Order: sequence, then structure tokens, then C-alpha cells
Amino acid sequence: MEATLKFIEENKERFLEELKDYLRIPSISAKEENKKDMLKCAQFVVSKLKDAGVKKTKIYKTKGHPIVYGEWLGAKGAQTVLIYGHYDVQPPEPLELWKTPPFEPDIRDGQIYARGANDNKGQNFVHIKSVEAQMKTMGKLPVNVKFVIEGEEEVGSENLTNFIKEHKAMLKCDAVLISDTSLYAPGVPTINYGLRGLTYMEIEVTGPNRDLHSGSFGGAIANPINELAKIIASFHDKNGKVKIPNFYKDVKKITKAEKENIKALRFSDKKFAKEYGVRELQGEKGYSTLERLWTRPTLDCNGIYGGYTGEGAKTVLPSKATAKVSMRLVPDQDPKKIAKEFTKYVKAIAPKSVRVSVKEMHGGHPVAFPLDDPAIQAGAKAVGKAFGKKTVFTREGGSIPIVVDFRKILNAPVVLMGLGLDTDDIHSPNEHFSIDSFYKGIYSSVYFMEEFSKK
Amino acid sequence: MEATLKFIEENKERFLEELKDYLRIPSISAKEENKKDMLKCAQFVVSKLKDAGVKKTKIYKTKGHPIVYGEWLGAKGAQTVLIYGHYDVQPPEPLELWKTPPFEPDIRDGQIYARGANDNKGQNFVHIKSVEAQMKTMGKLPVNVKFVIEGEEEVGSENLTNFIKEHKAMLKCDAVLISDTSLYAPGVPTINYGLRGLTYMEIEVTGPNRDLHSGSFGGAIANPINELAKIIASFHDKNGKVKIPNFYKDVKKITKAEKENIKALRFSDKKFAKEYGVRELQGEKGYSTLERLWTRPTLDCNGIYGGYTGEGAKTVLPSKATAKVSMRLVPDQDPKKIAKEFTKYVKAIAPKSVRVSVKEMHGGHPVAFPLDDPAIQAGAKAVGKAFGKKTVFTREGGSIPIVVDFRKILNAPVVLMGLGLDTDDIHSPNEHFSIDSFYKGIYSSVYFMEEFSKK
Repeated sequence: MEATLKFIEENKERFLEELKDYLRIPSISAKEENKKDMLKCAQFVVSKLKDAGVKKTKIYKTKGHPIVYGEWLGAKGAQTVLIYGHYDVQPPEPLELWKTPPFEPDIRDGQIYARGANDNKGQNFVHIKSVEAQMKTMGKLPVNVKFVIEGEEEVGSENLTNFIKEHKAMLKCDAVLISDTSLYAPGVPTINYGLRGLTYMEIEVTGPNRDLHSGSFGGAIANPINELAKIIASFHDKNGKVKIPNFYKDVKKITKAEKENIKALRFSDKKFAKEYGVRELQGEKGYSTLERLWTRPTLDCNGIYGGYTGEGAKTVLPSKATAKVSMRLVPDQDPKKIAKEFTKYVKAIAPKSVRVSVKEMHGGHPVAFPLDDPAIQAGAKAVGKAFGKKTVFTREGGSIPIVVDFRKILNAPVVLMGLGLDTDDIHSPNEHFSIDSFYKGIYSSVYFMEEFSKK
Repeated sequence: MEATLKFIEENKERFLEELKDYLRIPSISAKEENKKDMLKCAQFVVSKLKDAGVKKTKIYKTKGHPIVYGEWLGAKGAQTVLIYGHYDVQPPEPLELWKTPPFEPDIRDGQIYARGANDNKGQNFVHIKSVEAQMKTMGKLPVNVKFVIEGEEEVGSENLTNFIKEHKAMLKCDAVLISDTSLYAPGVPTINYGLRGLTYMEIEVTGPNRDLHSGSFGGAIANPINELAKIIASFHDKNGKVKIPNFYKDVKKITKAEKENIKALRFSDKKFAKEYGVRELQGEKGYSTLERLWTRPTLDCNGIYGGYTGEGAKTVLPSKATAKVSMRLVPDQDPKKIAKEFTKYVKAIAPKSVRVSVKEMHGGHPVAFPLDDPAIQAGAKAVGKAFGKKTVFTREGGSIPIVVDFRKILNAPVVLMGLGLDTDDIHSPNEHFSIDSFYKGIYSSVYFMEEFSKK
């Protein structure tokens, strides 16, 4: 182990130079014109895996961009870790806002600036370098390792689920390791162990069979905007609880340990409110902000439209009004069941004076791993050791569909070992990644394999 | 009188031919390219007034299109009637939906088809022909007559209010006579004696200072769409009454005579609901449909928008949501006072977690004339005689701002002697006007002057 750590220390400069090479390839998955760069980038990943000692590699073609696979299975009888990442990046536009060109990596103030520096090249490269350091010093790894580095994450990972299903046996593992999220705060080692799910619905309320003059008809014909507003207003009670029957039925209570962990994070409501320009936060009564965001299901209107939406005034009593409504779900809520309860509720409360149609747009399962899961614990110990601080456990209010896929199809826990920061401008101009986090990520990966092998 | 009636009978064909000439001029006020046609049309009206014996005429220039004025004041000591109409028409588009070209009048099934046939050339021409018939047979009229035929009604009558104010003395009269509305039903003589007013507001609710991800922030930051929906939902109580404090304070109760008149109209809720494709009507409890539409104030959302309104799903917690809300007013509600109460109410109920701005867009006063006003009574007798049936009294849920102007500035009652039908497709392709109504309108106008002179 000591030799490995020394190797990393001595090769930092080279690792960074190699990351720069990786970042110079404009692997923009959304653009047809970068198709050749995508293949070039996949080949770059393969060559780096081979350099690291992962000799068995393959580029899998898909309907979209190729998936890079590599495996080293020399640790007979030991645990197997699947490392996921993506080599594709977001388009860099608007170009004029970049201080240095997006595909010419630049080092400033301890950060490396380039498209993909954080999301996700910088974060997946740490694991390749970790394997290299171990292989070159010990000639082996304490665990078996499988790499899946895809090229379509930024365009919806359309072909990944099928790939996992089709190669279920090949991808069999005891844990999935992903570095594609953020630290709770700069320098704070973080393991994310839960993501909310989603049920996304569209409600359309139809009143009269055509747009009417609100003077000539107002007061006698129900107004679909007013009725839609009543439906939306009826989604929450005065304590911020969602009123849809059975909405909370399958919600698992969080454990005492989780509650304490959240409390220990000392989240500042005041700072949060200030950052987003609101005078006061608002949510379900009886829960702290992080509990609301991470562990409680919620309902939000994502869009609404109806009637006249242009400049000035038009006195129309519109025929239709539409709202998009999504619910964030937590374990063990089921997106399909929630969609059904939602539809039933909306149809039941709408008056006979209007017609209501409810459409299910899409959904995703929530996921949360037990804090005491060995993989989660190994992850926590690893980052704690690398960063030299106590690891914090977080969850995330959003969804990462592939995490659910890995968990469901491979039946393995997923360790979200995020190394970025929310302020790293991923998807924006001047994306960057802390060089310190890059190095600490390599150590974290080495420690994780070590810790996880102890099972 | 008999000679006059006989003259009308004998000149029907010619009157219709002259109306066709009037309709052939494409006096589209909204289009720059028709500016010359507008002047040509104003000159046509002048020539017809002169033919009718109204020798003193003048074309008043405005910042927009000219106003035609004409007067015959030979009935010394008698009442004075101001006849208002407009010679401009709506654009005819979409042209491909017209069965015959919009400016080539065509007679089919007892109707004359052309843009402006009903709105308003056909309806104002009856009064010119009525004057002609009386002048050519009796050499005089029983009342003094003033004509104001404007050219900007279809673009908002922008210059008319100032014209009335500036020529208040010249326009002094005992009643204003306007044929620019509809019969209650085909063949049913109708006098409209009231119009609702308007207060039009815009509400903007602002939550976070930028659009946020609804997964990462939903449940902790107030959603402006949900909050706007709550505000809108709180405008009505469960009986359909508007909950804004003092909203009904200045509402004048309708008289027993008015109530009975409405009842006598035997309005069919079932037919109305079917026509507009709703299963059930909806409105303020304790009032019939026509009472709600004509005599009760109402509140309607005219437009709403916020967040993602495109195809599919986007999980945004938007920064802003906006609604346009209008209230229809009845005597003696004041648009400014209502706007103030509305603003106060909305600001008071919004939670501290969002910011709310309320803007007054525009407003208009309601108006209703007493059923026993001599001008209203003279109008009722006149149309009853011409159509050979009992006249019905109606009000209208919408607003006609010029009616309020005439009443306020000239302090005169306005007789709305509508001759069209709601099914005449004004503002749409194939606008038409019943030739029978055109002729009956001429008789109505003659009878009105006769009746009104009796005071």
C-alpha cells in the first residue's frame, strides 16, 4: 500500500498531464459533427485502461455512441467492484463566456478548467489512475474490477439500460462505484446514499369547446384556468403535506442514524434562503430542510399555461388550461402507484363543469442504501482517509436513473463517491475541477478497494 | 308618416344596392394599405348623409382615421338624437374561408354577405336611410339629428373619446342611438340597456431568483406556480362568490321589473350548455344564468403561464409565474376601487416565501340605464312596432367603452338598438346580415324618432 501511495505522489504531474489529453478530445455526445471525436475518446479510455493493467477491454457499439468496457478479474474469490463513468461531455456553448477555450485545459488557482474537467472525465479518470498505481506497484488489486465508461450520459444514457440487461452476467458485481456527484462542501469527504424518484404528470382541464369572450360568458361557464388553479391548490394542506390519498403510505421512515447524520450537517436555512433570493423557506411541517429535500416526497408544478399569455390584456375565457406536475418520491414509493393515486384524486375533485384529462409522462424509482451497507461504509472510510476528515452522508433530491438501473438489474449497492462541487459550473462555461480533489479521488479509490476487500 | 313608410317600401331595392356600394369599399382600419379606402369610405358616408338631407357635414381628421359628422337641427325645440356608428371593418382574413369575396357583397337565403354587412355598415346605414325617407316625404324630422360615424372602432376607438370631449357642445343631445349589437333571438325586437365594466389585473409571483431543479430544490423552496394557484383558488368561495373584501359593496340590486324581464326571456341553460360543450353551467349561487351574465360582477383568469410549457417534461422549479385576471363589474362598482381591493387582497394572502407584484392593466365603468328611461322606452316601442312583436330588454356581460363615454361626457342615455344576430359571423369569414333586419331597422329608426319626439 505504501508503495502505491508513493507512486501516486510521484506521478501526480503525469496524471494531470494525461487528464489534460483526455480533456482535449471534444467528445460532445449531442453533436453529430463530433462523432469521430467520440470514438477517439473511447479509444483513449481503452488505451489508458490498458496502460493501467486492465488488459481485457472492448468497445461495445450501440445505436448511439460506444460503451467502453474493461475488466481485471485477478483477485480470485475477492469482491468485485464495477466502476461506472462517462467520457462524453456537454456542448460548451456559449463559447464567448469561456475565459480559456473549453477544450484547451488551463490551470488556474488550483483548478483545472475545461469542458468535462469535473463532469465526468476528471472524476472517472481517478479510478483508472488508482488501478494503475496499484497494478504498477503491487502487480494486482485487492478486488476484481470492471469498468463501464459510456458515451451517452449527457444525452440520456439511452442505450445503457439495455447494455446492462444484455450483459448482466458479465457485469455481475458486489458494488458499483460512481464518482459523478458533489462533495457536501469543499474539502468535506462525502458519500451519497440516496436519490429521490419521480412521477411526472400532465393535467389538461377543458371548459367550453372554444375560447369565449370573458365578458359575454364570464360567470356562467366554468373557467378552466380557475378550475385548474383549484386543483393545484388542493394538492397541499396548510402544513405542506400532499393531500393525495395514500401518497405517504409506502414512505419508509428514516432511521435514527440518518436523522442524526442530517442534523450533524448543520445545514444553514438562512444561507440557503439568501443564496436563492427568498425571504423564507417553505415545506412540509415537522421536517428540517435537508429532511424535506432528501427524505420526504414532494409535489411541484413544473409548468402551467392557458388563455392569453402575451403582452397586455385580452379578455378571453379559454377553452383549455394545462399544468405539468411532478412528484419526487422516496423509498418505498412506487412511481406507477403514485401516478394512479394522483389521477384518481384529480379526477375526483374536478367539478362536472369541466373535463379533466391526466397523462402520465414518465417516472423513476427512488433509491436509498442502508447507511450500514458494507460498500457504503467502505466508501465512507476511504474518502475519510483520503480527505483526512470525517465523512458525511448525503442524499440528493433529484434522480439519477442509471443508479436505479444498476441496483435493480445487478442487485448491487451503488457507492456515489462524488468529488466535484456544486459550484464547479458543470454544464456551464468555465467548468472546472479542483486538482486537489482529483488527487484525493485517486487515493480514495485505492482506499476503497482496500476497504471493500476486507469483507 | 304613411308616406315615409311607403317610400321605404318602394325604395328597398335601391337601399340594398346602396348598402352594397358601401360594403364594396375595403375600409379596414387596421391595415396601413387601406388608408385611402378609409377616406373614400368616409366620403361615401358624407355623400349619403347629404343625399338624405343632412346638408351640414364635416370630416374631422384625427391622429388615425377620420370621423364623419353630420347634423340636421331643423326641429326647433324638439329633442336631439345623436346616432353613432362606425364605417371601418375588421380585416377579412382568412380569405380562403369566404364563400364569396368579402368586398363583393352577395345575397343568399335572405342574407347579405360581406365584411361589414352587420358590423357596422349595415346597421348604421339604416339610420341614414331612415332620415332620407323622412326628409324626402315630410321635408323634416320630428327630432334634431346628429351623426357621428367613426373609422376606428375595430382598432379601439382611440381618438373618439377626445373628439367627444373636444366637441361636447356640438354633440349635446338628449339620447344616443346605436345599432351595433344583437337581437336576443332571430326576429325578436331587442333593446340593450346595460353593459358590464372591467378591471383587468396582472399578478406576478416570484419565488427563487432563478429557475431551479425541482428535484434538488422541491420541498424546501416555495414554488411560484403552486402559490399562484393558491391565490387564484382563493378568489371564489364554494358558492361562486368572489371573496375579495368589499367586492360587492357598491353593487346595486336589480329592480323587480328587471328580474321579471329576465325571467320572461325563458333562457335555456340546457341549450346554452350544449352550445358551448359543457356538461354543466357554473356560477354564483342564487342567481339565474342571465342574472349572472348581465347583472352580477364576476372574476375570471384570462391567462396563466410559468415554468416549462413545451412538449414533454422538464423538472424545473420556476422563478416566476404570471396570471392575467379580469373582473366584470356592474353598477355602481368603480374599476379603480376594485383594482385597489384586489391588490390589497392578493398581497395579503400571499405567503412570505414568495414575492407578489400586482399590476392594473386597464378598466372600464359599468353602465345600466333605467328601464323606464324615456329614450329606452321610445327605443323599445319603435323596434316592437317595426318587428311586430313584444320588445325584450337585455343587458350584455361585455363592455362597450364608447357607451360609457357618451353617457359620461354627454350625460345622455344610450339606446342600444341592435339589429344583428350573434350567429352573423362578425369578425369571422362570411359575415352576414339579415336583409329583413336591415329593412326593419329602417322602420325602427323612423318609429324611434317619432316616439322620442313625443316627450
